[in-house]
Amino acid sequence: MLSNKIVECVPNFSEGRDLEKIEKIINVFRGREGVKLLDYSSDKDHNRTVVTVAGEIEALKVCIIDFMEKAIELIDLKEHQGQHPRMGAVDVVPFIPIKNVTMEEAVELSKEVAEIASEKFGLPIFLYEKSASCAARENLAVVRKGEFEGMAEKLQNPEWKPDYGPCHPHTSAGVTAIGARMPLVAFNVNLDTSNLDIATAIGKKVRFIGGGLRFCKAMGVKLEDRNITQVSMNMTDYTKTALYRSLEMIRMEAKRYGVNVVGTEIVGLVPMQALIDCAEYYMGIENFSSDQILESKLME
Amino acid sequence: MLSNKIVECVPNFSEGRDLEKIEKIINVFRGREGVKLLDYSSDKDHNRTVVTVAGEIEALKVCIIDFMEKAIELIDLKEHQGQHPRMGAVDVVPFIPIKNVTMEEAVELSKEVAEIASEKFGLPIFLYEKSASCAARENLAVVRKGEFEGMAEKLQNPEWKPDYGPCHPHTSAGVTAIGARMPLVAFNVNLDTSNLDIATAIGKKVRFIGGGLRFCKAMGVKLEDRNITQVSMNMTDYTKTALYRSLEMIRMEAKRYGVNVVGTEIVGLVPMQALIDCAEYYMGIENFSSDQILESKLME
Repeated sequence: MLSNKIVECVPNFSEGRDLEKIEKIINVFRGREGVKLLDYSSDKDHNRTVVTVAGEIEALKVCIIDFMEKAIELIDLKEHQGQHPRMGAVDVVPFIPIKNVTMEEAVELSKEVAEIASEKFGLPIFLYEKSASCAARENLAVVRKGEFEGMAEKLQNPEWKPDYGPCHPHTSAGVTAIGARMPLVAFNVNLDTSNLDIATAIGKKVRFIGGGLRFCKAMGVKLEDRNITQVSMNMTDYTKTALYRSLEMIRMEAKRYGVNVVGTEIVGLVPMQALIDCAEYYMGIENFSSDQILESKLME
Repeated sequence: MLSNKIVECVPNFSEGRDLEKIEKIINVFRGREGVKLLDYSSDKDHNRTVVTVAGEIEALKVCIIDFMEKAIELIDLKEHQGQHPRMGAVDVVPFIPIKNVTMEEAVELSKEVAEIASEKFGLPIFLYEKSASCAARENLAVVRKGEFEGMAEKLQNPEWKPDYGPCHPHTSAGVTAIGARMPLVAFNVNLDTSNLDIATAIGKKVRFIGGGLRFCKAMGVKLEDRNITQVSMNMTDYTKTALYRSLEMIRMEAKRYGVNVVGTEIVGLVPMQALIDCAEYYMGIENFSSDQILESKLME
């Protein structure tokens, strides 16, 4: 079991087809003191694997370096094809503060890993999200633009000098983005309409870029098998934009179409507090402290 | 940190005034492998201390026997006075299944502790709640009736032959009740009326003995400082009578008086799942599994 200070890490590496290679890489996370492999899933179309691990800061640091070494050894990006954008064998390494860890500590951890990895592997590394050295590098999609094939040229541009490592991509492992961010929650709200235009219109209103909630990304999706639609969201900071706020805003916007919310869905992992915050809101619980949750006490 | 199978124990002992004695007893729970002291609080008027510990089955068994030995050594019930009913130096020892432990295992644990303690200390012990040997012994208040002063006579009655140990009270330590039960949740609902009669009437409707919810005890309480009232509840099995169900029933009953719910309160510890169940209900989350909660994964 893990101690009191816990960071999560969700590294993405560019191999989703060769099971033997995938297992060799995943094995780096197994049987480690102070680090716990929580989940991993590979996508053949994306040709990419997403890993979820959590651990104590120091143990996680060593583990991620070992993981990068193994992935760089086994993956040659010159031969990589897949639907998902990518620029490196180890494409992106986000660190996420979970328990008794500040965002500042997660940023510090990301920079230490970036420094060690760039020197050890001769790998150019961009810091992104909360670790970014300037606003232009916060957004991963912008950093990764050009992908592996375009990185040699991109890195020659002084504006895209890597934060760590050389100004040319690693021959086989390309470029890696490392940073710290809040936990993402994949939260979907189902509507009793089969009209995708309505779900799309609501999604645009509730999301940040459309004038909606600050930490909410949203789009309309059709659920063909149920003949209904869904506002599919990525909540990028549940501590500031609570799940219940997006749900109630969708309910409100749906009313004008005579459409009702018929259910919701949480995909993948969710921090306990994201749901406790919702229980507190709907039940009107006064002066509640998460110290009152038995499991929190047990984890102390 | 604790392993995968966790039982909680909430022993009550009959000393709430002598801090030196209290600390000597509480110290038994400190620095133990596999057992964690979560909370304790003493009440001078009750002259009683309630302890909350959690641990692995075997470690907890040894720890509770050691605790009983120390409490029996230091407390003399012949000299004990307090407002709270009591029959023993160690008055009651409930075991509560928390994680990957069945009620059957908690019952088994309670019987093992009762057998060991009765032999080691020459202490008569009643099994109660889910461990009770017959329906008449399920309710602690019924078992404890007569209190310490009346136990010598009560134990002579063949109907009240203890489940373990001799048919006479321990000279200084009296009689102990040991059993297994579900976690209790103290859940209160505040009403925007200062009329205690209304809160009392609603409490009677929502509680089990009044024709209400199976695992709900309730009473009306006045909150003098806020000039409002409260339905104060003990939820005795949140897995069967969910918190949101009692809240919505109170809201419904309050309507006929033109009274509104203005807030709720959870006193003390609450299992995470009791609140997650409420979030699932109010948000209409489909197909949610508690395995999706990050903290559950971390505790595995």
